[in-house]
Amino acid sequence: MSVEANASLRAGEVAVAAPLHGDAALYFIGSVRTPWSQSRDCPRQGDREHGPICRIEVNEPWRAALKGLEGHSHAQILYWMHLARRDLVLQSPRSDGETTGTFAIRSPNRPNPVSSSLVAILEVGADHVLVRGLDCVDGTPLIDIKPERCPEAPRPKGA
Amino acid sequence: MSVEANASLRAGEVAVAAPLHGDAALYFIGSVRTPWSQSRDCPRQGDREHGPICRIEVNEPWRAALKGLEGHSHAQILYWMHLARRDLVLQSPRSDGETTGTFAIRSPNRPNPVSSSLVAILEVGADHVLVRGLDCVDGTPLIDIKPERCPEAPRPKGA
Repeated sequence: MSVEANASLRAGEVAVAAPLHGDAALYFIGSVRTPWSQSRDCPRQGDREHGPICRIEVNEPWRAALKGLEGHSHAQILYWMHLARRDLVLQSPRSDGETTGTFAIRSPNRPNPVSSSLVAILEVGADHVLVRGLDCVDGTPLIDIKPERCPEAPRPKGA
Repeated sequence: MSVEANASLRAGEVAVAAPLHGDAALYFIGSVRTPWSQSRDCPRQGDREHGPICRIEVNEPWRAALKGLEGHSHAQILYWMHLARRDLVLQSPRSDGETTGTFAIRSPNRPNPVSSSLVAILEVGADHVLVRGLDCVDGTPLIDIKPERCPEAPRPKGA
């Protein structure tokens, strides 16, 4: 099922034919506003402490589902990397002909380009959440928001 | 858009009409084999150290994408909670009439029931991965496998 002649593949990379149909449908429940208008401008990883404040906009009919999120300091944000290609099984991140399987790297290019970021919550509004820690391009479709404990919270002194 | 009369709703819970169409299609790339045949048998959270060994089966054409995963000790597994309902915006986890927004709890019932587990990798085969740390029902559809650092790895003594 390899596609042999594909000008946008790097040496050694292998693409497969995409399945003829999907198995489940995602709903885009909102979108993520960030300062980065192109993929190449995005940081490699979000910074929950010093990164810019980003706005997560939640669409109807899902806004009521934000109730209670203000009681949490951190959240896991799932979003859809809509600019990714979905057919690569072997990739060559360094463009040197050496390939790694898609499941052995965290490239956005994967069969189901769902990404997960752990963010710090600054504000929860009726239709939005302000957070720090995102790294995706402006306009990225939102899939989910889940409360999360902060993994690296320093223990209080004496505890 | 509330559905008022719904026998399976607990007091105070609110369901909305599902969108008429999906915005993106997920491919099920394999399935997860666990010892738990029903949701009620599943542990609340996977145990990477002492949990049972589970088998992640990867379908074609995606198997080549496992190349290199054997060099990693841990992975993030994304799967689709196919038994979840997707229309709840307010839920009452304790069935006491007190409700919380879906985005403020980690219930499987959410607009896009994508779950993420951090697992320990025991074996990577040509068409499967053996792991510890899953908590989902047997037969759960697989969405993605990504290498991950273990967050709580103890530092070597003297380091």
